[in-house]
Amino acid sequence: MDGVKIIEIKKSVFESNDREADALRRELKQKGVFLLNLMSSPGSGKTSTLIRTINLIKNKLHTAVMEADIDSDVDAVKIKAETGVESIQLHTGGMCHLDAEMTRQGLDGLNLKDLDLVILENVGNLVCPAEFDTGSCKNAMILSVPEGDDKPLKYPLMFSVCDLVLINKMDVQPYFDFDLEKCRQNILRRNPKAQMIPISAKTGEGVEVFAQWLTDEVRDWKK
Amino acid sequence: MDGVKIIEIKKSVFESNDREADALRRELKQKGVFLLNLMSSPGSGKTSTLIRTINLIKNKLHTAVMEADIDSDVDAVKIKAETGVESIQLHTGGMCHLDAEMTRQGLDGLNLKDLDLVILENVGNLVCPAEFDTGSCKNAMILSVPEGDDKPLKYPLMFSVCDLVLINKMDVQPYFDFDLEKCRQNILRRNPKAQMIPISAKTGEGVEVFAQWLTDEVRDWKK
Repeated sequence: MDGVKIIEIKKSVFESNDREADALRRELKQKGVFLLNLMSSPGSGKTSTLIRTINLIKNKLHTAVMEADIDSDVDAVKIKAETGVESIQLHTGGMCHLDAEMTRQGLDGLNLKDLDLVILENVGNLVCPAEFDTGSCKNAMILSVPEGDDKPLKYPLMFSVCDLVLINKMDVQPYFDFDLEKCRQNILRRNPKAQMIPISAKTGEGVEVFAQWLTDEVRDWKK
Repeated sequence: MDGVKIIEIKKSVFESNDREADALRRELKQKGVFLLNLMSSPGSGKTSTLIRTINLIKNKLHTAVMEADIDSDVDAVKIKAETGVESIQLHTGGMCHLDAEMTRQGLDGLNLKDLDLVILENVGNLVCPAEFDTGSCKNAMILSVPEGDDKPLKYPLMFSVCDLVLINKMDVQPYFDFDLEKCRQNILRRNPKAQMIPISAKTGEGVEVFAQWLTDEVRDWKK
């Protein structure tokens, strides 16, 4: 199996992350590249969701993935092996999130002029990544059924900054005390504008809805 | 249902967390109180594991729980209602972890001279809490089956600082690609001294083993 490029991310030197994030977004707009920041807890299924989704869109959208992790390159290797799209690993050292400048370090490792869509798989963490604008065009997160329908009550900022919440592992709902309607209400309490898509990365259920959402977002961004 | 005490935690002013943590541990030793720092991802089952466990030990050990959360008091209320032991909620504001001084602020809200055991349920996060010694006597964590057996590869520090790893939600193992032996090997790679106990907070499987571990640790600490 081919190795993947690994970028060791350095701590940002910029004082104003919000300004850096806005500047990065303007550059992406000029270049016609849509950046999605995908966040979640550890183990909620970010990588397997991306593999399913990218295999649905890769013939229409030139896509690349940046996998942020404290250590290891297992996710980037897996994405590359199972989708064929470019995938790079960002090592954050011990850092628990990415900010805009760190995201830019990752984007510098890609050939943006050939791309329509870059997906940043952020560090698995429902707390810190929510506090830093990465410069992405949209924020999405995955909440998985085994984590419970009460998570929006306990991690309010994460749910309030996300445009889209994917509710993953719907295939195992019968084995957990997870009420989808209660989950929706808890999410809407934090973020009345949140869009929600129930999916199963394992069976493929609902993944085509997410693929269509991404396709529409990229089209709108390039207008 | 009775309300629970809520303590709004302030940011620490101390420069050396390690020194503060050692001082707190010495005080706890003098007072004969064992403090367990319990960490995990969001939704891995910390609260339900504690309820099962406390109901097994509460007649032998005077126990109290400190529930750290960014927001909400659902966990502290639940622990108090379902076990009857004292339970206080620590609000961390947006903070993603507790350090020793913050832990001390919580302990100040308890009557330590009546207690044998205090369990700190840390913020649900596999990254930041691992970086800060809370002053606890032992660190434990929960990894749940749906999160996957590869987590020790991706969150190395968390696994290396924990004396005990509870592997929870064993009841749903048939529905997930989770290899218990591979998980054990991944944990031992990070921490050759780690103890591991497979449990199910739902069915009760293995919880008595954790209860015995806690009982033994408290007895040794009080020697």
